[in-house]
Amino acid sequence: MNKINAIVVGSGNVGLKVIDVLLNTNDFNLVGAIRRSGEPIAEYPNIEVKKSVDEFSEKIDVAFLAIPTREVPKQAKEFLAKGIHTVDSYDIHSNILDVKTELAEVAKKYNAVAVVSSGWDPGTDSIVRAMLIAMAPRGMTYTNFGPGMSMGHTVAVKAIEGVQNALSMTMPTGAGVHRRLVYVELAEGASRDVVENAIKTDPYFINDETHVRFVDDVDALKDVGHGVELTRKGVSGSTGNQNFMFKMSIDNPALTAQVMVSSGRAATRLQSGAYTLIEIPMVDFLEGERDEWIKALV
Amino acid sequence: MNKINAIVVGSGNVGLKVIDVLLNTNDFNLVGAIRRSGEPIAEYPNIEVKKSVDEFSEKIDVAFLAIPTREVPKQAKEFLAKGIHTVDSYDIHSNILDVKTELAEVAKKYNAVAVVSSGWDPGTDSIVRAMLIAMAPRGMTYTNFGPGMSMGHTVAVKAIEGVQNALSMTMPTGAGVHRRLVYVELAEGASRDVVENAIKTDPYFINDETHVRFVDDVDALKDVGHGVELTRKGVSGSTGNQNFMFKMSIDNPALTAQVMVSSGRAATRLQSGAYTLIEIPMVDFLEGERDEWIKALV
Repeated sequence: MNKINAIVVGSGNVGLKVIDVLLNTNDFNLVGAIRRSGEPIAEYPNIEVKKSVDEFSEKIDVAFLAIPTREVPKQAKEFLAKGIHTVDSYDIHSNILDVKTELAEVAKKYNAVAVVSSGWDPGTDSIVRAMLIAMAPRGMTYTNFGPGMSMGHTVAVKAIEGVQNALSMTMPTGAGVHRRLVYVELAEGASRDVVENAIKTDPYFINDETHVRFVDDVDALKDVGHGVELTRKGVSGSTGNQNFMFKMSIDNPALTAQVMVSSGRAATRLQSGAYTLIEIPMVDFLEGERDEWIKALV
Repeated sequence: MNKINAIVVGSGNVGLKVIDVLLNTNDFNLVGAIRRSGEPIAEYPNIEVKKSVDEFSEKIDVAFLAIPTREVPKQAKEFLAKGIHTVDSYDIHSNILDVKTELAEVAKKYNAVAVVSSGWDPGTDSIVRAMLIAMAPRGMTYTNFGPGMSMGHTVAVKAIEGVQNALSMTMPTGAGVHRRLVYVELAEGASRDVVENAIKTDPYFINDETHVRFVDDVDALKDVGHGVELTRKGVSGSTGNQNFMFKMSIDNPALTAQVMVSSGRAATRLQSGAYTLIEIPMVDFLEGERDEWIKALV
């Protein structure tokens, strides 16, 4: 069997877990990682690290972009233009369609596939939301997150001037309403008021009730566990009171990485273009033969 | 907008609900129903009823087969051979792949699409099972059904000689193990022992703990509510304790019919061939524009 040659771009929480997931599959060959520094990864000293994809001698099939969300569009296009499939976890919901459209153009031109906004939300939660509308087209869906650390929100806070270290927690208050608790270690000389205002007016936070708490040690608070409770009560035809719930309690970077790797597999099976997860048949995410999965799952 | 011309074949629990669902969509045109008797449907006296699809003057796009599961392969092939897409809810899990392969051959030849084993199990539950493997490839999934009436099992019992009326209830006992409670009104002169033995050795029941109870009035026991609790505890990469649950409590024929109609919509968007639900992108089940759903759901 020809294995899928993969590289990981970035070595943060998710990048390290993508490596772990790739090492636990049978159909991928982990060629190496790309880091700006070019330095070896402490946790995986034997993995080849380069500064650019051009330095690898193997033909790369899929690049997993475990990078800050705002860097995704530019970097994805660079890989796609080399005919390399990309998987990202771009998570600014309001821009996803635009990013997808942008990447689709490049992907089609260079005969590659971009899987956009992979992970669990956006991602598998999007699949559940779509499925529940197929099952009960009228009604209301609520996605309740947490309690758990939001990686995207945490990265956004860390990028704010005056922030030494940070952690953004998502707390569900019911019916899809959330509170954000942001724990911040201030940089020396930074102003609490300026930092607090910068956080509360950031696009990641501006629509939510946000509380900023200044602490001495953010690392002591960290736990990458997260959860979701997604509910829908809706109507099938004219029959109401159709009740649905999807609930999970998970290690967040591990799940994000696993869904990204499953998406990378799907990328090798799709026609060129860009796809969100609701545009990909479920069976294409799974290792092995389609007919075996039909026998096992349907 | 060109509406999708649809007919319903059969007018039992599910057939009536398919009519109800079609009347509650904007993109389907319900052309009529096919019944063996050719008689009008009491609940919908204004709907055109024919004995055969050839009697309709309109070009039919999709036929919804709300017929006993064992009649599906033969009837589906007849529609497909006329270039009409079919949606069935064939539910004998062990034969689904064979039926799909059989229908795929005819569908491809006549440029049609067969959606096989639509409904909620097989169907949307299959989608959830596949998604959970994409999220945590190692681990255990348990599908716990009920308490609720199983339509497939009830139809199977009713077909047994000596059974006047029947109702098969599915009772979850945990970890995917079920008990079947079969309530039977005996036909005059029939033997309890013979009927009980025929039920317990039927392929629908032979693998489950089955209790047969003889009653005077089955109809007084009927409620078409049903439910499922599908759980998985698994491993993403090397990270264990990933916990997932999908739970629903629903009107069974209404949900089956709604998923079938959503599948019929997908049929018009797919390349010719036969598909189970895990082979169809979620967005194709939804009424309206793909990009609008990406904006709303991803």
